[in-house]
Amino acid sequence: MTVRVGILGATGAVGQRFIQLLDDHPTFELAALTASEESAGKSYREAAKWRVNTPIPDDVAEMTVAATTPDDVPDDVDLLFSSLPSGVAADVEPGFLDAGYVVSSNSSNDRMAPDVPLTIPEINPGHLDLIEIQREERGWDGALVKNPNCSTITMVPTLAALDEFGLESVQVSTLQAVSGAGYSGVTSMEIIDNAIPHIGGEEEKMETESRKLLGTFDGAELELHGMDVAASCNRIPTLDGHLENVFAETADDVSPEAAADAMRTYESADLPSSPAQLIHVFEDLERPQPRLDRERGEGMQISAGGLQETPSGLKYNCLAHNTIRGAAGASLLNGELLVEEGWV
Amino acid sequence: MTVRVGILGATGAVGQRFIQLLDDHPTFELAALTASEESAGKSYREAAKWRVNTPIPDDVAEMTVAATTPDDVPDDVDLLFSSLPSGVAADVEPGFLDAGYVVSSNSSNDRMAPDVPLTIPEINPGHLDLIEIQREERGWDGALVKNPNCSTITMVPTLAALDEFGLESVQVSTLQAVSGAGYSGVTSMEIIDNAIPHIGGEEEKMETESRKLLGTFDGAELELHGMDVAASCNRIPTLDGHLENVFAETADDVSPEAAADAMRTYESADLPSSPAQLIHVFEDLERPQPRLDRERGEGMQISAGGLQETPSGLKYNCLAHNTIRGAAGASLLNGELLVEEGWV
Amino acid sequence: MTVRVGILGATGAVGQRFIQLLDDHPTFELAALTASEESAGKSYREAAKWRVNTPIPDDVAEMTVAATTPDDVPDDVDLLFSSLPSGVAADVEPGFLDAGYVVSSNSSNDRMAPDVPLTIPEINPGHLDLIEIQREERGWDGALVKNPNCSTITMVPTLAALDEFGLESVQVSTLQAVSGAGYSGVTSMEIIDNAIPHIGGEEEKMETESRKLLGTFDGAELELHGMDVAASCNRIPTLDGHLENVFAETADDVSPEAAADAMRTYESADLPSSPAQLIHVFEDLERPQPRLDRERGEGMQISAGGLQETPSGLKYNCLAHNTIRGAAGASLLNGELLVEEGWV
Amino acid sequence: MTVRVGILGATGAVGQRFIQLLDDHPTFELAALTASEESAGKSYREAAKWRVNTPIPDDVAEMTVAATTPDDVPDDVDLLFSSLPSGVAADVEPGFLDAGYVVSSNSSNDRMAPDVPLTIPEINPGHLDLIEIQREERGWDGALVKNPNCSTITMVPTLAALDEFGLESVQVSTLQAVSGAGYSGVTSMEIIDNAIPHIGGEEEKMETESRKLLGTFDGAELELHGMDVAASCNRIPTLDGHLENVFAETADDVSPEAAADAMRTYESADLPSSPAQLIHVFEDLERPQPRLDRERGEGMQISAGGLQETPSGLKYNCLAHNTIRGAAGASLLNGELLVEEGWV
Repeated sequence: MTVRVGILGATGAVGQRFIQLLDDHPTFELAALTASEESAGKSYREAAKWRVNTPIPDDVAEMTVAATTPDDVPDDVDLLFSSLPSGVAADVEPGFLDAGYVVSSNSSNDRMAPDVPLTIPEINPGHLDLIEIQREERGWDGALVKNPNCSTITMVPTLAALDEFGLESVQVSTLQAVSGAGYSGVTSMEIIDNAIPHIGGEEEKMETESRKLLGTFDGAELELHGMDVAASCNRIPTLDGHLENVFAETADDVSPEAAADAMRTYESADLPSSPAQLIHVFEDLERPQPRLDRERGEGMQISAGGLQETPSGLKYNCLAHNTIRGAAGASLLNGELLVEEGWV
Repeated sequence: MTVRVGILGATGAVGQRFIQLLDDHPTFELAALTASEESAGKSYREAAKWRVNTPIPDDVAEMTVAATTPDDVPDDVDLLFSSLPSGVAADVEPGFLDAGYVVSSNSSNDRMAPDVPLTIPEINPGHLDLIEIQREERGWDGALVKNPNCSTITMVPTLAALDEFGLESVQVSTLQAVSGAGYSGVTSMEIIDNAIPHIGGEEEKMETESRKLLGTFDGAELELHGMDVAASCNRIPTLDGHLENVFAETADDVSPEAAADAMRTYESADLPSSPAQLIHVFEDLERPQPRLDRERGEGMQISAGGLQETPSGLKYNCLAHNTIRGAAGASLLNGELLVEEGWV
Repeated sequence: MTVRVGILGATGAVGQRFIQLLDDHPTFELAALTASEESAGKSYREAAKWRVNTPIPDDVAEMTVAATTPDDVPDDVDLLFSSLPSGVAADVEPGFLDAGYVVSSNSSNDRMAPDVPLTIPEINPGHLDLIEIQREERGWDGALVKNPNCSTITMVPTLAALDEFGLESVQVSTLQAVSGAGYSGVTSMEIIDNAIPHIGGEEEKMETESRKLLGTFDGAELELHGMDVAASCNRIPTLDGHLENVFAETADDVSPEAAADAMRTYESADLPSSPAQLIHVFEDLERPQPRLDRERGEGMQISAGGLQETPSGLKYNCLAHNTIRGAAGASLLNGELLVEEGWV
Repeated sequence: MTVRVGILGATGAVGQRFIQLLDDHPTFELAALTASEESAGKSYREAAKWRVNTPIPDDVAEMTVAATTPDDVPDDVDLLFSSLPSGVAADVEPGFLDAGYVVSSNSSNDRMAPDVPLTIPEINPGHLDLIEIQREERGWDGALVKNPNCSTITMVPTLAALDEFGLESVQVSTLQAVSGAGYSGVTSMEIIDNAIPHIGGEEEKMETESRKLLGTFDGAELELHGMDVAASCNRIPTLDGHLENVFAETADDVSPEAAADAMRTYESADLPSSPAQLIHVFEDLERPQPRLDRERGEGMQISAGGLQETPSGLKYNCLAHNTIRGAAGASLLNGELLVEEGWV
């Protein structure tokens, strides 16, 4: 079975990753690319400044870019991936949902809306059922699913694994790659021989999205997880791969070994882009490292390491590829889940 | 009054910083430079591969390097600064102390010894009185004072300022510059486009040294501070300046404003190399940044910023120049305190 | 004698360098700052995002920013430094010249105009006399002087020193710092772990400006130097300091030693911001290096090194600080020359 | 047909690349790994600090490392790849040749020896016949073939393509990646925010090896190519991929278009690891760039771009992956040629 998919915002950095990831996809067939008005009508090759380190697939290069409106997207497209800037997405996504499209969106708008599923397929697939409430309340024929922010998604699988011990408090520091800010988001003068201890909005995203992802949906309402989360977010001079230091406190005592086991055995999902093992745990205290480990599992696996006791709980490090697992790959996986669960 | 000083291990990275800092010193006169056997007898210019970004002072360049033994150091040298590798220092420092020298040492050996003062002059000058116990127990004529590790010293002044609210728990993540590992400590292949979530021994140093620095000395015994400290240490691709994210819990409630006030008004010391204000607090959440702020106060001021509430306390960031305030400048300041307090 | 000076385009990267360099200037007093319409009327502190590594001088921070039109600049300002983007400068500079201002401009427009002096004070001060022709032809009361591009100025002093041997051909490769493109000119995604073998317009600037700088002005017409110049320009991940590899052929044989002598003894100018020695020549083949040597002579000295024979001539390397000697410092020095020669 | 191969010096950076490249090789089967005495007897997993960004192949990880002597290498190994440090190689390689092994060596010793073929299979395969002279003169049963230095091999294919126009003079500047110096060859303190305008021995290698590679072998003696070559070599902060700026003069006039055609159509070799097209020529002046283009053709293709006229000839840029095409891949390809030509 082939599903025809489109990309809203196909020329940007995340859009290019979507194209790269869809290139050999077993069931998704790329059938529409949209971008801003000025790119509409051009071939993708002309419209996009291609910067990914594999060549543009030839057939994609020759596709004509459409404007980002429902009228310009073919009706037989079943599923749309959105990597629009959040301001644009907030304006444009509702039109596609009214028009009946299923949208798996990486944009940050509406992530915390009570009727929008914020989903990581391996963690909280059941939250998809929020779509029914969403349709009822908003009168949409389509469906909107969001994936979390790249810094959130790096940490949440490890927290999900630890939650069997009763998570109470999480403090996390991030060392984030420049690609997380988009191609032009961080200038070289800002970051060479430097680090920036603040990323606008990022700390709040980590603090709220993680509680929604681990929250409980009883069919009627989604209750946020009760843990406390405090985050400090830093930008550092790496290209790809967010590294995070987590300090966690749990209701039950948990040894580093038990925590590592819980992570290693946390079940992955049976979807085309899900890694065989969701979390790889290193013994070597010096791992994971962004450049060495971001490509694990085609960029879809989470890495963890450095599990050690602290006076009040555990500390450990985790890492994920921020533009694959943390952006395009996250939306793609949600798209696969939507198909699997029959929403597409 | 002029004090004649020497440097043990003068050719290394920290040794070069000592020379740079002593160049215009108001009371210290550089009178001896020691290095390994193979450098002994050479001029300093020949012996050292000078890598600091100011030229070698001409008179220092012409000085003859001595071997690192008490016999080779002139008797009229009053105070020695030690920047030897800790293994070498452990072997060599006792000989200088037996011979009656006062040694202000940056080397990590013996920092946690109960009779060795671990001192930041602005924080715990009274700990110097441990020297009397030290002399009694070890039979030394000289005196040994240590300064803390570069990652510890970056954080402790801010903790000292917060301790009026009753520090109970500290969790800290560091983003440390490559110079902290010495000139050849981190290869370019290890760190370009990367970060390393572990620095051997560093976490334990932060966890123990900070409790000694804020501990209480009653004239007989030094009691460690009772707070819990957990640290995660990371190396990132910056040259100089350690940036740290601190999460702190205190017995009394403290607002970010009150915390900032406590930091801003924490008293500095009246020593030649102490900054007028010990801690500069930024309002701008994006500061402090290593490249922009490490040189504040000639590299001797601590910077802080990003003070915000968390569910269980406070979070903030701090920064210091790791090879000035965190190494050579720290020993120098201890030397100035030793003179001020009459130990030299 | 105090000269009142202004800066056109004071909020940009080069504008900030002007302010830094003028802070302790012996004869220039900063009396006007201009920027775009939206900054006009604000205090400089509000208008500029200050990014230089020394604090904004307090008095400058409180100055009110004017619009970049002659009407908004006080009449008693004697000399203007221009660091406007070249497109803006081409529109705006003529108005200031009509209004009688003397303008020392770093902007690239009009550098090759036959009646505009393109000047490095230590190299071709006599070209200033083109101002008389300029005034005659353009009907200006003021005077316009340009300094060359940062990559040109790095190389030309060494070429001037070699020209006593009859320069015939020059081939040069540059390794240029990101600051040369302005604060936001090079994104971090473009340059981390990378290099870019092209900088728009740069090669042509080097190839033409160098021939004008070493050209001959007979009082009536400026004849370009007859040498051939070919340049390849590269951007690399350094912050400041352009490094260049030069291959030069001369009519007369010249040994590396004779070439080094010619460089070392090439006369500097007797102006406040001119270095005591114009060109420092290293024996060590590994020098000059951008980070270690860009600050020599307060960023105004040229460094050279690696002089060696080739089958057809000489090769060597040279380096200068691109935003000091290569931009703000270059204009400042031209301003000092204009005063010295009585044009202000 | 399967050829059993071994790697001398298998634990180093180039050794690891050999293992990576041999992992899926159609005809070579890895049968021996050697390293220093202290590694001998250990499993490869224990002996090597694996730093390549793909996991160690499981079967290789379990192989036992042998000492680097002919006695410890199984007799049924047909071909050895050598990535020993050149000093060690000079001592050790002759023993293997006496013992009858065919050795394809990346080590720099003996590259310019008149009876040792220095070979790039696509450029000068006929030089392999020097082996007969080598055997005669040295009494070896085996055969020794060398590949050129990484900086040489980046440039020589483009020169070979231009030689139909009669190469007379070449001046080249290199921007070389840190991996070219080995894993620990360049410290982070040396290269972050910096560049180093000298690499010991590198310039001479480029100047001599290129003339041997393009030289003529008449069956009795190898005559070096008559062109003049002058090189300036720089280290910059990139991980992999050497970028080079070439200025070339030819006897016949050649337009940039004709030069590009000559490069694009220069024939590749019909060997398993040879790319379909030897040289890819970019139209975009900003390419090739190390990070974007080093992986072309599995790291075995040469990239060129920026072809433009100069007053005396041509300028252009070229790029190759220095540890694949420039080291392990180069030796591998020579090994494939040795098999193809019947020497193994």
